[in-house]
Amino acid sequence: MMTPALNKVVIFGVGLIGGSFARALKHAGAVGTVVGMGRSPASMARALELGIIDEIGGDMAAALLGADLVLVAAPVAQTGAILSSIAPHLQPGTIVTDAGSTKSDVVAAARVALGGKVAQFVPGHPIAGRETNGPDAAIVDLYQGKKVVLTPLAENSAADVERVAAAWRACGAILHTLSPEEHDKVFAAVSHLPHLLAFALVDDIAKKPHAGLLFQYAASGFRDFTRIAGSSPEMWRDISLANQPALLHELDAYLAQLTTLRAHLAAHDGAAIEGVYANAQHARQQWIEAIETAEIPAAPPR
Amino acid sequence: MMTPALNKVVIFGVGLIGGSFARALKHAGAVGTVVGMGRSPASMARALELGIIDEIGGDMAAALLGADLVLVAAPVAQTGAILSSIAPHLQPGTIVTDAGSTKSDVVAAARVALGGKVAQFVPGHPIAGRETNGPDAAIVDLYQGKKVVLTPLAENSAADVERVAAAWRACGAILHTLSPEEHDKVFAAVSHLPHLLAFALVDDIAKKPHAGLLFQYAASGFRDFTRIAGSSPEMWRDISLANQPALLHELDAYLAQLTTLRAHLAAHDGAAIEGVYANAQHARQQWIEAIETAEIPAAPPR
Repeated sequence: MMTPALNKVVIFGVGLIGGSFARALKHAGAVGTVVGMGRSPASMARALELGIIDEIGGDMAAALLGADLVLVAAPVAQTGAILSSIAPHLQPGTIVTDAGSTKSDVVAAARVALGGKVAQFVPGHPIAGRETNGPDAAIVDLYQGKKVVLTPLAENSAADVERVAAAWRACGAILHTLSPEEHDKVFAAVSHLPHLLAFALVDDIAKKPHAGLLFQYAASGFRDFTRIAGSSPEMWRDISLANQPALLHELDAYLAQLTTLRAHLAAHDGAAIEGVYANAQHARQQWIEAIETAEIPAAPPR
Repeated sequence: MMTPALNKVVIFGVGLIGGSFARALKHAGAVGTVVGMGRSPASMARALELGIIDEIGGDMAAALLGADLVLVAAPVAQTGAILSSIAPHLQPGTIVTDAGSTKSDVVAAARVALGGKVAQFVPGHPIAGRETNGPDAAIVDLYQGKKVVLTPLAENSAADVERVAAAWRACGAILHTLSPEEHDKVFAAVSHLPHLLAFALVDDIAKKPHAGLLFQYAASGFRDFTRIAGSSPEMWRDISLANQPALLHELDAYLAQLTTLRAHLAAHDGAAIEGVYANAQHARQQWIEAIETAEIPAAPPR
């Protein structure tokens, strides 16, 4: 039997993201022992029962002893505190990575928390999710064909970055690299702003006195448009705050766009309205074609 | 053999909406002869070939002779012209209905076009669609379990409204009634504004210098959020203009909502942001549960 690439992996947060990482590594034979760490004894016990983890970690020093890789997959607001608790016990041979949806804030928190050991932290963001959470939501193929973005620090060694990349590749992911700042600008535009817009629309409608009548006639287009408004309010509050500068920038650009479109509508300027709509339809069609002709699909059909 | 409820139906526009209406009526045994009318000889020939229609209508007077029901399912911008061409040949026993996504403008156009015969026009709006069009897109079960909203005029007889309702019921639809003004306010909020917002977002992103990088990282949340931006730009230009007052009203309310949310974000007011997000998530969840527990689903699972 071959020795697994990772002897021991410690995962903080054994829900959808951390649990699926554990399941995929185990399935690939890429890990010896998985130790789970977390604040909820019930979740930890459930993860153990489901075979997602092999041990529930108690003492931090013992949990980290001999660990090859640590994944922080807890809510992003806890990342700084978790890294601070890890820092005193972090040994030279251990690499730490995370799964947070924002990266500049995580890097800043890591520099404070890890200090001279920050070279051992390789920030990451798996672009995958489901609408359920907790250990029971964890599945072996969550990352299959999905993108994982690493945003390495200048201090990281190439070998450490590659070891994190290899672990994600073992889970079936496709690796990409961006700087933390690029990452946050990109996801502000294609993920964080759309979530804010969808939440804002549903709240806007729900607050109207005739909300019941409106929801009665909402159809499949509305359902798809607002699907992301079914996401966790706490998680998206944290993401919005963590990526505030980039999100404000994108929101302001969008408000300017809507203001222009409002002027076209007020002026009955059909050609200008059609110009915006047609450019959008064309761009989206090109994007869908690019996804569909890619060798590995970006997401499975739903 | 029973006599069908409708001896002769004339359909203007034999694409997705008109063609599916014809297919469903035929399937239900609710119609004798379907006559197709339209500007594209190729579409008419294809509809005949597919068995959607029994005859291609040529002369307007001959086509309308003895018709029980006329459905105008052409692009909304053509509705007025079609009704004007129908008017001189419209016999007392014939009812006319339409399938337009906006109703106040259609009613105004019908009053001008039909004059003293406007009592024979029962406005309607089937809430169903697909992302394809033309006769080949027409399917027998497009309206199965879907809502059809009728917006009757004061001049309509109850019997005429019921005959239109019965035709849609034969197609499997669930009938609802609103005033034209109510209809337009409701659909401005739950359909027209979301379309405008989705088109605006994709255009906004597509115009950025780093659009290629952005689209590369757009994932399934973005795909669902922008699905309606894949719709026909011409059709949605016409709908936006036709329902301009109600759409402007909804757009202004949404701009005010975004401006408030922007202020919360700028002030790092996490509680206020979470309040909006949580209210939206809760309202959407209630709506989805209401849909799922309804006796007849509002839309089939995709």
